Amino acid sequence: MTRKPALAVVGATGAVGAVMLEILSQHENVWGEIRLLASPRSAGRVLAVRGEECEVLALGEETLGGVDVALFLVPAEVSARWAPVAVARGAVVVDSSAAFRLDPEVPLVVPEVNPHAARIRPRGIVASPHDTTLAMIPAVGALHAEFGLRELVVSSYQAVSGEGRDAVAALRSQLSLVAGTELGSTPGDVRRAVGEAGLGPFAAPLALNVMPWAGVPADDGWSSEELGLRDETRRILDLPALRVAATCVRVPVLTAHSLTVHARFEREVTVERAHEILATSPGVVLYDDPASGGFPTPADVVGTDPTWVGRVRRALDDPCALELFVCGDNLRKGAALNSAQIAEAIAAEFSR
Amino acid sequence: MTRKPALAVVGATGAVGAVMLEILSQHENVWGEIRLLASPRSAGRVLAVRGEECEVLALGEETLGGVDVALFLVPAEVSARWAPVAVARGAVVVDSSAAFRLDPEVPLVVPEVNPHAARIRPRGIVASPHDTTLAMIPAVGALHAEFGLRELVVSSYQAVSGEGRDAVAALRSQLSLVAGTELGSTPGDVRRAVGEAGLGPFAAPLALNVMPWAGVPADDGWSSEELGLRDETRRILDLPALRVAATCVRVPVLTAHSLTVHARFEREVTVERAHEILATSPGVVLYDDPASGGFPTPADVVGTDPTWVGRVRRALDDPCALELFVCGDNLRKGAALNSAQIAEAIAAEFSR
Repeated sequence: MTRKPALAVVGATGAVGAVMLEILSQHENVWGEIRLLASPRSAGRVLAVRGEECEVLALGEETLGGVDVALFLVPAEVSARWAPVAVARGAVVVDSSAAFRLDPEVPLVVPEVNPHAARIRPRGIVASPHDTTLAMIPAVGALHAEFGLRELVVSSYQAVSGEGRDAVAALRSQLSLVAGTELGSTPGDVRRAVGEAGLGPFAAPLALNVMPWAGVPADDGWSSEELGLRDETRRILDLPALRVAATCVRVPVLTAHSLTVHARFEREVTVERAHEILATSPGVVLYDDPASGGFPTPADVVGTDPTWVGRVRRALDDPCALELFVCGDNLRKGAALNSAQIAEAIAAEFSR
Repeated sequence: MTRKPALAVVGATGAVGAVMLEILSQHENVWGEIRLLASPRSAGRVLAVRGEECEVLALGEETLGGVDVALFLVPAEVSARWAPVAVARGAVVVDSSAAFRLDPEVPLVVPEVNPHAARIRPRGIVASPHDTTLAMIPAVGALHAEFGLRELVVSSYQAVSGEGRDAVAALRSQLSLVAGTELGSTPGDVRRAVGEAGLGPFAAPLALNVMPWAGVPADDGWSSEELGLRDETRRILDLPALRVAATCVRVPVLTAHSLTVHARFEREVTVERAHEILATSPGVVLYDDPASGGFPTPADVVGTDPTWVGRVRRALDDPCALELFVCGDNLRKGAALNSAQIAEAIAAEFSR
């Protein structure tokens, strides 16, 4: 009989950690020990996983020992510091932060799209993509396998919950201030009202507004998230010269990212064949009956695992291009779920 | 001395009519009589224009007589019925509805882009584009004049106020219900809460949500507004074979439409030259300093006339393509202002 591998969840007390414990409790139990780690400040808290109470330990060299797989659900700087320690102590690391996403020796993996990539990990680390990439990639990857992707033009409609508790609190208090008032038709009135509630981590109000920015400034006017979408999509699909143009926009939605996708392929496409592919691909749900109000929206997909796809159309001026609207929960597939799936694929190596 | 032409405002009591009376009161006074017309139900109301009180008359064959220019700010079916009557009685009609936008004998005019087109009007009618097209076309037209437009991929972030009072009321009551609650993280909870407030004219909730649909169903999964964006842009720019792929998405914003624009040109572009063009084009404001939070949002542009442009980037994989984020007030330039500008250009013909 083979041994069940031991798992460490690093960052168990955060928002993504909470979703991870839920997922580990629902999925098939492939793990021996599950150890919960967090900052010393959170050590001693007791959390439930697999129906059992489990005390949170302080992240450290000691507590990373004796672990087969370490799931890192922490900010990039914490991953950069501690993932190599976990590897040195014998663990395979699955990292959900940006710390290693563009490291050529760290595979970037979406199990529905490039599961094989997780097997070759020179640094002992596997990275999970950013939530915006994950909201679209299962659908885009499935279509690429059939038609051969040449170019993507994407625009995002990003929720705030991926930005942390301050972001959610800011949107909630802004909404309380503007709700029921006559704001929104005179210059400056939303800005003034929301100024009282505070912008939180954002550069503009989000209640009754949208903001064309996500991430930090990069070169030539691009944001880090726009460049990330391009770089990560190229790595996951193994298309290093793929043309990608992305604009990231934040919208007043709490959870679930949406994107419009213009995808140009090598071969001619049909909506019928695209529907067949999307309806049968793992991790994708097709919901495309707009004449009856059938299209995914954040309110429909929050709390669910798959990428939802609707509004599938063939470009009127290009028989090789498809238009899509995709929606995915940024806290589930967008963060905890994809990392859990990678870890479970690595766990399966232990029973071979 | 030349005679000042007489103007009729048809639909003076509606939301766009109110903005029109404000604009007519602020602009240079080029009109002789200004006659206010509306449905018989609204006749007898007294509205202020140019600082004077003016009684609203019932729209009819009689009240359309003796007018040089008739501004129609009414639903398409009302325009279709009454615009030909106004023409038969001697007026030039400026129509803001969809009734004549695709009629090859009716020019579709944006004064900053194709002013010459307003001079040739075989049916005596000039049409004004849809608000979504108007939110981007001054910027796109200016860049086209320099670089030669080949292709557009656009995604919209559309406000609700263009859909009328029911739409605004629905979003307001939905916001009141969801504000301050813990909604938005469990499947179905926003849908349930908003269900109590009612969806108004929409197929999905808009509070804490976005909806990938605007208009009525057209062929092959497209919406009428998506096809309108393509057809109108082609007509205004006189590019009948322009490649256009649009996805229209409604967002929880009261006033001001935004769009992401991927524009591919014949010639190579630079951000520097694009900035120069946008900074000096009529009806366009450049606001592009993202590292300091400088980009247009609906909250900034509501109540203003121009198209605001930010996030100007050259596509990383195509030296002939630019990415933009544009924002414009759908009730001003998007409706009343553009029609007023067309009417004023026609008024100028009377003084020649």
